[in-house]
Amino acid sequence: MNTQFPAERILLGPGPSPVSSRVLRALGAPTLGHLDPQYVAIMDEVCEMLRQVFQTKNALTFPVSGTGMAGMECIATNLIEPGDEVIVCINGVFGGRMKDVMERCGATVHTVDAAWGDVFTKEQIAAALDQHPKAKLVGIVHAETSTGAHQPLEGLADIVHAKGALLVVDAVTSLGGHELKVDEWGIDAIYSGTQKCLSCPPGLAPVSFGDRALAIMDGRKTKVQSWYLDVSMLRKYYTAGGGGRVYHHTAPINMTYALREALAIVLEEGLEARIARHAQMHQRLRAGLEAMGITYVPKHSLHTLNCINIPAGADDAGTRKRLLEEYGIEIGAGLGVMAGKAWRIGLMGHGASVRNVDLVLTALKNVLK
Amino acid sequence: MNTQFPAERILLGPGPSPVSSRVLRALGAPTLGHLDPQYVAIMDEVCEMLRQVFQTKNALTFPVSGTGMAGMECIATNLIEPGDEVIVCINGVFGGRMKDVMERCGATVHTVDAAWGDVFTKEQIAAALDQHPKAKLVGIVHAETSTGAHQPLEGLADIVHAKGALLVVDAVTSLGGHELKVDEWGIDAIYSGTQKCLSCPPGLAPVSFGDRALAIMDGRKTKVQSWYLDVSMLRKYYTAGGGGRVYHHTAPINMTYALREALAIVLEEGLEARIARHAQMHQRLRAGLEAMGITYVPKHSLHTLNCINIPAGADDAGTRKRLLEEYGIEIGAGLGVMAGKAWRIGLMGHGASVRNVDLVLTALKNVLK
Repeated sequence: MNTQFPAERILLGPGPSPVSSRVLRALGAPTLGHLDPQYVAIMDEVCEMLRQVFQTKNALTFPVSGTGMAGMECIATNLIEPGDEVIVCINGVFGGRMKDVMERCGATVHTVDAAWGDVFTKEQIAAALDQHPKAKLVGIVHAETSTGAHQPLEGLADIVHAKGALLVVDAVTSLGGHELKVDEWGIDAIYSGTQKCLSCPPGLAPVSFGDRALAIMDGRKTKVQSWYLDVSMLRKYYTAGGGGRVYHHTAPINMTYALREALAIVLEEGLEARIARHAQMHQRLRAGLEAMGITYVPKHSLHTLNCINIPAGADDAGTRKRLLEEYGIEIGAGLGVMAGKAWRIGLMGHGASVRNVDLVLTALKNVLK
Repeated sequence: MNTQFPAERILLGPGPSPVSSRVLRALGAPTLGHLDPQYVAIMDEVCEMLRQVFQTKNALTFPVSGTGMAGMECIATNLIEPGDEVIVCINGVFGGRMKDVMERCGATVHTVDAAWGDVFTKEQIAAALDQHPKAKLVGIVHAETSTGAHQPLEGLADIVHAKGALLVVDAVTSLGGHELKVDEWGIDAIYSGTQKCLSCPPGLAPVSFGDRALAIMDGRKTKVQSWYLDVSMLRKYYTAGGGGRVYHHTAPINMTYALREALAIVLEEGLEARIARHAQMHQRLRAGLEAMGITYVPKHSLHTLNCINIPAGADDAGTRKRLLEEYGIEIGAGLGVMAGKAWRIGLMGHGASVRNVDLVLTALKNVLK
């Protein structure tokens, strides 16, 4: 294998998604110091564009210096203190991870469970809040990457806030690809990744905290167990103006350039148009797959990630290997209980195009015949 | 300020260091999936080259998906369980941070203290081990970035191991620029950053764990408090062969390309030649500074970072601003108790060159006159 030159894959798995040449070029710009006035201005631009993409006015909106899971951990470790009770909704791998991460923060986690592929009703969550009145927060996955299920979030915050809890959302596979209105929907804390619908390489995790979350963090009695992810220090770097900025850690400079370019592309297209494009490409793919007799795992499918049942008789690994070797197309294997049963076709960001949809349909038909 | 095109700075601060065009070009290669066979092969190459640069045979040697401080936290959170006692040597900011990070992991931290700029003797550390016989590890900074002090490490492991403790080393500002022999010196766990003497952008933290550290991690009674940094899961991705590799999180793909190129450059030059070059450039700078009447803060100075006393009457911020604006040269301000008293001139990796040394001397002379 020639490892010197990374191949030009068509990334149609669960992420990373295809990165445009504009973003790759931005990545390779000269490295600035992390306290250079020019870099600080670039970081401010990134935070402001993230606010637009999250549809929030939250001042505390910034990219965590790690991949998506660091975003989940940042929110958990800052909001939770040992002994807290929380509610986590589990209908796939990432809800399960949220439980694990929050338990490691010292929380007692009460779960609301649904079958893999299903989503949660407001009634289920209201019942859990009634049962666990001390719950500090409800954690839920907007776009469950392991099953392709699309969780509706509108109206949920009212139920959660009525019980004095926070609404915490995993938007790793939805930010920039699905409708997601942080302020209008009353989301208190949210995290995502760069390598999904933003079409930036992995390495940063956009997060946003609202006022309720800030109040919880300001009222902590214990130190955040992670120094690296401690927002009480991070905010002095990310949200302090000009000379008041305090060094915490060295941010991933070049990744920040890439994220800025990726966000600029999102905003040039326009959020609404971009979300509509993801819906159209999903419908185009879905029509083609269903015409081949292929069925979807979730009832409410994401547009950004299509989790489908492997057709009877098809060779799971062999099919994916042929797609990769003959077409340079990556699709995802099933994850968790879906391993060997499902494939995951991502149409995210730069990857959600007519040519990719039609190519993957053609390639699948050829390989499966 | 035009923020669109990052300026071509000469980075002579405490890091990031200058990144060569070869590394910047590698950064912009097409993004692969993190489970792509080609990417897995690239990651294996990176781990093998890291072993060479760390001078170790440790199988568990890999880049943590975060910046240098994530490396420190990775080692602390995996080796420490709540209630453990540890010894941390503090003679600057980064020793102090190690204490903070380890306390957040639930450790009782006993400190050995030295004046900022000083280093520790073996006798001091032996005395601390006698005083705290239950100490699980001794944490020490090889290259204290806040003071420029260069801590000798040879022979220290014997003292530490005789008491059944582990030797944990911060090599953020020495790896690839100073002599550092992990196996020969008996270091049990070590972390570094990419943005110093490896001259790669910030975003990854190389770490290495030896057999004693592995045994401690295998014998843990509690879960690692950080999911993101939990080595019991990370090792299934980084050290499992081929098909046995288990997905944990999405690694920073493009940063991994950059690190591979940066490590290839280190090994092409040769570790010994590279370390000699850092020594020569330090001597050249030191001679020039001392001829100007400028004195060093530490008695045992690093070659990679020169921490100097600000000359009487010189304007701290004004001088740094003029260097940046007139010459495009970044040097570092003093950190912690050194703020306003010291400057830090880094000569790291790609930045440790005759032309940079002579230019910064000339620029300083002009700005200070």
